[in-house]
Amino acid sequence: MALVVIGGVAAGLSAAARARRIDARLEILVLEKGPVISYGACGLPYYVEGLVRDSRQLIVYTPEYFRKERNIEVRTGARVVSISHPRRELALESGERVAYDRLVIATGARCDHAAIAGASLPHVFTLHTIEDAERMRRFIEEKRPNHAVVVGAGYIGMEAADALRRNGVRVTVVEGSRHALLRDDDEFTAAVVRQLEAHRVEVRLGTRIHSLEPDRAGDIPCDMVVLAAGLRPNTELAAHAGIELGRTGAIATDERMETNLRGVFAAGDCAETTHVVTGRPAWIPLGTTANKTGRVAGANAAGARSRFPGVAGTSIVGIFGMGFATTGLSVAEARREGFTPVAARIEALGRPRYHGGTKTTVELIADRATRRILGGSAIGEDGAGGRINVIATAVQARMRVDEFEQLDLAYSPPFATVWDPLLVAAQQLMKEL
Amino acid sequence: MALVVIGGVAAGLSAAARARRIDARLEILVLEKGPVISYGACGLPYYVEGLVRDSRQLIVYTPEYFRKERNIEVRTGARVVSISHPRRELALESGERVAYDRLVIATGARCDHAAIAGASLPHVFTLHTIEDAERMRRFIEEKRPNHAVVVGAGYIGMEAADALRRNGVRVTVVEGSRHALLRDDDEFTAAVVRQLEAHRVEVRLGTRIHSLEPDRAGDIPCDMVVLAAGLRPNTELAAHAGIELGRTGAIATDERMETNLRGVFAAGDCAETTHVVTGRPAWIPLGTTANKTGRVAGANAAGARSRFPGVAGTSIVGIFGMGFATTGLSVAEARREGFTPVAARIEALGRPRYHGGTKTTVELIADRATRRILGGSAIGEDGAGGRINVIATAVQARMRVDEFEQLDLAYSPPFATVWDPLLVAAQQLMKEL
Repeated sequence: MALVVIGGVAAGLSAAARARRIDARLEILVLEKGPVISYGACGLPYYVEGLVRDSRQLIVYTPEYFRKERNIEVRTGARVVSISHPRRELALESGERVAYDRLVIATGARCDHAAIAGASLPHVFTLHTIEDAERMRRFIEEKRPNHAVVVGAGYIGMEAADALRRNGVRVTVVEGSRHALLRDDDEFTAAVVRQLEAHRVEVRLGTRIHSLEPDRAGDIPCDMVVLAAGLRPNTELAAHAGIELGRTGAIATDERMETNLRGVFAAGDCAETTHVVTGRPAWIPLGTTANKTGRVAGANAAGARSRFPGVAGTSIVGIFGMGFATTGLSVAEARREGFTPVAARIEALGRPRYHGGTKTTVELIADRATRRILGGSAIGEDGAGGRINVIATAVQARMRVDEFEQLDLAYSPPFATVWDPLLVAAQQLMKEL
Repeated sequence: MALVVIGGVAAGLSAAARARRIDARLEILVLEKGPVISYGACGLPYYVEGLVRDSRQLIVYTPEYFRKERNIEVRTGARVVSISHPRRELALESGERVAYDRLVIATGARCDHAAIAGASLPHVFTLHTIEDAERMRRFIEEKRPNHAVVVGAGYIGMEAADALRRNGVRVTVVEGSRHALLRDDDEFTAAVVRQLEAHRVEVRLGTRIHSLEPDRAGDIPCDMVVLAAGLRPNTELAAHAGIELGRTGAIATDERMETNLRGVFAAGDCAETTHVVTGRPAWIPLGTTANKTGRVAGANAAGARSRFPGVAGTSIVGIFGMGFATTGLSVAEARREGFTPVAARIEALGRPRYHGGTKTTVELIADRATRRILGGSAIGEDGAGGRINVIATAVQARMRVDEFEQLDLAYSPPFATVWDPLLVAAQQLMKEL
């Protein structure tokens, strides 16, 4: 039995490692198109910032490690160009053919810049791979740009803006939609914009850039551009092989992460999952989900039975020291999904002032009919991660706001207030329902 | 209709305020034996430390505030000495009698030092009231003690040790049991002891102090003593009035916080509640529970219907910058309660090293038969509070470890690792089960 994994970053390597744990004798081969594997893609902005000094610090494992310690063969620079499932065979760019019994597709995602003229100019960057980050870091050091335009106010865009600002670069963020961080929530977006503007980042929402020139992006003068919008799953290889895509455009999978082709699994940013609130397909590409779905795909590919229950879409991003976190559905999403959402948004101290407490904003959303928690958000200089995780846990447990209000949360002045902002939000929500 | 509340701190004032919200016309009287009301008792150690400069900063509301803003009468220096329920009447120490229709008993708890000779010497302190803290602060400033013995390694003892050490006082902590922080868990206790010793606090477990003298506590030379052991609910007043106590020794209540006497409620540190894991009575006196049970008692006393589902026993204490947090049952407690507990304890980075991540310890405990999460602990320089709250939420949702392992928790390098220590613990626990 041979398992082949396409993709050597989070999902692919999780799949390979998990498969090895389940079957010590399985032949496992990982094919990675790039020159390195196993890098912490989420750490790239911190390398650009300069906080991570050496890009090698972001590499968790080498191919040698996998070969020696896990008996997993890893080939870099090995780009797969086609899959012939009837023959259980892949073709590489080099012309070489590779046979498989089971296949895990972990081809990731990329920013689609087809609509932007000039995207390949030398002062234009993306931030997906370690080479992208190295090229950007070198450009900052050598060219000392004055003004960068960041296209896209998603996580990568925000982190890039933060990293560039800390390098003394003037930054303008341009976002096509009316919302930041992919959350269609006006107040949440307003808080993001306030934080950016407080750190002298200019923000233009509802603005699209169609062309880049050496000295400007659209009508904005600049000498550097970061493209961080239009993320799309890499599905071409799968689609050409007859693998079905879902309504989100990503590869459709069942709860075992198996595609419509038996023995072919998909995981990570190229794959669709289920949203735990709606029960419907969702495509929310994040590192956490890549690792988890990779693990499940690898287990099943090796003959175990493992199930991925889905995602709540929990995420957090740090913007100049402030955490912006969301989970579950926004009010607008909940309405579109047929719920009758009721929300409470409160501001409260995260801990007493004498312990350095600052304002924390918590939004909690429940369904009017069932009183079930549908989602929420947390914004704060500290504790936003812990608080969003409590909401995420409640969402996944299908908890009602009545139970949430009674949560026995930890309190002590260095850590929290006696009525945690989460409970203040729940009390407010109880009044609204 | 007249509601009388005995006790003007967390539980009593929560009850009074909640009752007012429910019934604008109810006559409400709060009787507090001490000279001030509404102080943050949990903040007292930080006043002793010197972080809180003025003890008035710990007072949230004054009697005048309640009178003017809430139409609630508050009397300080009003000690209730007996309750005659057949007559619906209280007697004060002054001889005055006060009539009630509904009564909320929120008499709190105190350290019982009957077994310790010399407990009233001038260099001996407790840390329950604002006067206690003021006296201790004055003593530190005026007498400049060299060596303090703290009797009791519970929350107050730990916080007192921390506060004294930061004032340059040598500290020895003496604890009668074999465990710190009331958690019968050897490894958790070992971590507490390591942290204390790393900050040059001497610790003696399994040691009881029977007598205090001006220059020593038992056989330990010292010039200051803090008594922080033997906490007992103040139930004498209730017991004499024919109110039943539970098996924990605290006032027995139903889920409406009503005692066996109709119209008489109990809340806060004097009252028993239900443990959400065991479903059995528990007495876990904490500020969070005091506020919540006060709120429920006040609502019901005012004629609403409100229910308190119980506690998970979630708590956190900061010891020299490290958070020690627990929730639910320990392995030993779970075993005593008839479960077959299985535990996993892991150590992992709370966030990447380049973002200042340090080791976090997480213990997760589940029942072998049902796989339900029974409790856990978290220790770390940051994030211990957020992590224990996730476990507490899972405990209260009766979540199984299989679901817990799949929690969609927030990740981004400034806040967490891609596999949060909580999930690493859950994966380990899945292997053990």
